[in-house]
Amino acid sequence: MATHEADVAVVGAGLAGLTAARRLAAAGRSVVVLEARDRVGGRTLNEAIGDGKVVEVGGQWVGPTQTRILALIDELGLETFPTHTEGANLFERRGRIRRYRGTIPKLNPVALVETGAVIARINRMARRLDPEAPWAAKRSGRWDSQTFATWLRRNVRTRTARDLMRVAIWAVWAVEPEDLSLLHVLFYIRSAGSFEALLDTEGGAQESRVLGGTQLISLRMADELGEAVIRAAPVHRIDHAAEAVTVHHGARALRARRAIVAISPTLAGRIAYDPPLPAVRDGLTQRLAQGSVVKCMALYPQPFWREQGLSGQTTSADGPVSVTFDNSPPDGSPGVLLAFLEGGAARAASALPEDERRGLVLGCLRRFFGDRAASPDRYLDRAWPNEQWSRGCYGGFLPPGAWREHGAALRAPIGSLHWAGAETATVWNGYMDGAVSSGERAASAVLAELGRP
Amino acid sequence: MATHEADVAVVGAGLAGLTAARRLAAAGRSVVVLEARDRVGGRTLNEAIGDGKVVEVGGQWVGPTQTRILALIDELGLETFPTHTEGANLFERRGRIRRYRGTIPKLNPVALVETGAVIARINRMARRLDPEAPWAAKRSGRWDSQTFATWLRRNVRTRTARDLMRVAIWAVWAVEPEDLSLLHVLFYIRSAGSFEALLDTEGGAQESRVLGGTQLISLRMADELGEAVIRAAPVHRIDHAAEAVTVHHGARALRARRAIVAISPTLAGRIAYDPPLPAVRDGLTQRLAQGSVVKCMALYPQPFWREQGLSGQTTSADGPVSVTFDNSPPDGSPGVLLAFLEGGAARAASALPEDERRGLVLGCLRRFFGDRAASPDRYLDRAWPNEQWSRGCYGGFLPPGAWREHGAALRAPIGSLHWAGAETATVWNGYMDGAVSSGERAASAVLAELGRP
Repeated sequence: MATHEADVAVVGAGLAGLTAARRLAAAGRSVVVLEARDRVGGRTLNEAIGDGKVVEVGGQWVGPTQTRILALIDELGLETFPTHTEGANLFERRGRIRRYRGTIPKLNPVALVETGAVIARINRMARRLDPEAPWAAKRSGRWDSQTFATWLRRNVRTRTARDLMRVAIWAVWAVEPEDLSLLHVLFYIRSAGSFEALLDTEGGAQESRVLGGTQLISLRMADELGEAVIRAAPVHRIDHAAEAVTVHHGARALRARRAIVAISPTLAGRIAYDPPLPAVRDGLTQRLAQGSVVKCMALYPQPFWREQGLSGQTTSADGPVSVTFDNSPPDGSPGVLLAFLEGGAARAASALPEDERRGLVLGCLRRFFGDRAASPDRYLDRAWPNEQWSRGCYGGFLPPGAWREHGAALRAPIGSLHWAGAETATVWNGYMDGAVSSGERAASAVLAELGRP
Repeated sequence: MATHEADVAVVGAGLAGLTAARRLAAAGRSVVVLEARDRVGGRTLNEAIGDGKVVEVGGQWVGPTQTRILALIDELGLETFPTHTEGANLFERRGRIRRYRGTIPKLNPVALVETGAVIARINRMARRLDPEAPWAAKRSGRWDSQTFATWLRRNVRTRTARDLMRVAIWAVWAVEPEDLSLLHVLFYIRSAGSFEALLDTEGGAQESRVLGGTQLISLRMADELGEAVIRAAPVHRIDHAAEAVTVHHGARALRARRAIVAISPTLAGRIAYDPPLPAVRDGLTQRLAQGSVVKCMALYPQPFWREQGLSGQTTSADGPVSVTFDNSPPDGSPGVLLAFLEGGAARAASALPEDERRGLVLGCLRRFFGDRAASPDRYLDRAWPNEQWSRGCYGGFLPPGAWREHGAALRAPIGSLHWAGAETATVWNGYMDGAVSSGERAASAVLAELGRP
């Protein structure tokens, strides 16, 4: 068997793995990054649309308080620009489309007041937990014993507010309310700061975009690392001892002193470990599933909706497209409408051939933006549940019971094995910012163990 | 690469896989069974205790209506004998131990009436679903949106009845009430016939034992199959096309026309498939986790508890041991007390060294049966969550949301790939009987596709 060596083996060349590798290399440690795909960037992915422009079929937004990803963007010489928000947003519910401005659609006053009160209440609950240890919160037993659907059913009275909350769940977690532990919802909100921080465009997680596309962040880091990044190298087994790991990929074996596994927990659970991992860790990866997203883009000669006073942002409780955005390049050419299928709708659509998905999505865009939306110059999409090396987006989530029983295994190193990835972050869990901070944390832990050379 | 060939490749030499292989061989089809462990029997396992006697550290009981496993036992020339039930049972709750007879402990009359009413109500709900398609039940949306903990909190008033239900959940599913979708509970009960069928010794799932131990069932089938069963052959990849599969194990490849994957869904999800499986199937294996059991046995010169008028059966709401049985051989020598750690208690105990588990378990047995229980001649246990090729027992379960979104992928063949195992059964799901019927079903489906030679 062909073997090679490094101080540290990193599994996964997404933002977490590359950030960790870069830190380790900067500290003088030799590192090899093994990436299953033939490209880097994980859940970020640029697609060229001509004239040197790109759209992102993976993660794309950054926002305030996302200090780690913003610092990295800056360090790599990249720039951000604001998400297009000018104009009125649309809200569709029970066959009716309304215009509104801001985050929460103009609903009937009772529903509007209730939605505000419910969000405030959730924020208050979220503030009562420590994102480092959500299972230790005083009320964690109660919160982790119920689904978010149960909580909504008990605590939200108007159907309008419930519909609105369901779209919010699609938009943030890409699952259905019944999939989520209430404790997971609270943890996730706590890790981002507030529910509004997750939902908002201006002032929130959708505020800005990266010039040239977010995959550039990973591409630049991989360029720096050069031959230390090995593509098309899926890892199938890791042998580990206190001070040594052997990471098997194809017919090769990488020997190192530490490994940082920087892929989603559900995929990390598919690697064979020798010796096998403790039950509490194995049980975690049995339970932590990925959300379901299909990200779709329709390209037009111009962003024609802007002429109609529309921002391109839509929230639909009717679906199957739940959320849209104006995703045009900064100069507005071409005009790009971004449409998300999320949760159950994404799962159903992932099973369809692309042309049927196209029909489904364009049908929704036509409802929202009129006949011109039905005939784009180009349509493209990415069904993330079908992607072998992601198996879902945006991130992972835990069902009831799992945080309390298995949460402590999410980040805890096991001998020479360390864990990174957006799912392991305590700040902006599930986001690019969380991926970066998780890579930094894992690199620091490994450096502390190995010492600086 | 060394290759070998058969009509059908079977992955897993537990009851499901061996039953399927035996049926296929009997129909004239060539078959090879690949087993990861160096033994057959999966979650059944005999352990010798001297004098040619055994105890079972895995699945052990059979009961009425379990027609498939009973027929197989008979066919293989094996015999059953009744579980020891003579004497009074014990129920421990909040530090107090009471004697009772039958399935439900003598509680205060209000709690007793309520427990009966709750069980009757659950049975009525369960009867309203089709075990072939629980997601299609009229109320499945409501049932799959909540945990069983939520349902109990809303529908059971007395604390005593709630405590009793919690022990019942430990005993049947080896999880906590918050882990389970209410729909999964109803499906599982429906598949067994009634809640009582799951809980009862006489007249229920714990009624009888197999002379010589249940692993004999698999050992005899494996003997019949001879060299067709390959041990120590973990499968890591399956390439599949419409009419061909290549099953990779170690450096060898088995070529066949069909594959029957007869292992738990969570372990099936760790195999690499080329092409990758559809999202709905992958999402199922991301969500279907195994319960947690440590099965413990203490051996004494005699079953001394019988002298005290005790049956050896205990139900404890205080834990960590939740349930005990008299597990002595038919002649009562040696005396064997069987103790289960289940759910959270099993997970915690799985992380302990065996001598600490021993202390924990014997401490409970002393509480139940007095000082003599503290000093057995021998103690042995098996922590199933630690077992690399099971990763939990008794069976798998689904959290809220999963049955509705992913349930249809549980048994549905994917081209040349068929699925078997106790988790795929519609009758006695999770039991040895379900494993056998699942193997029969998969073999029949494959034979129907291939035709008889």
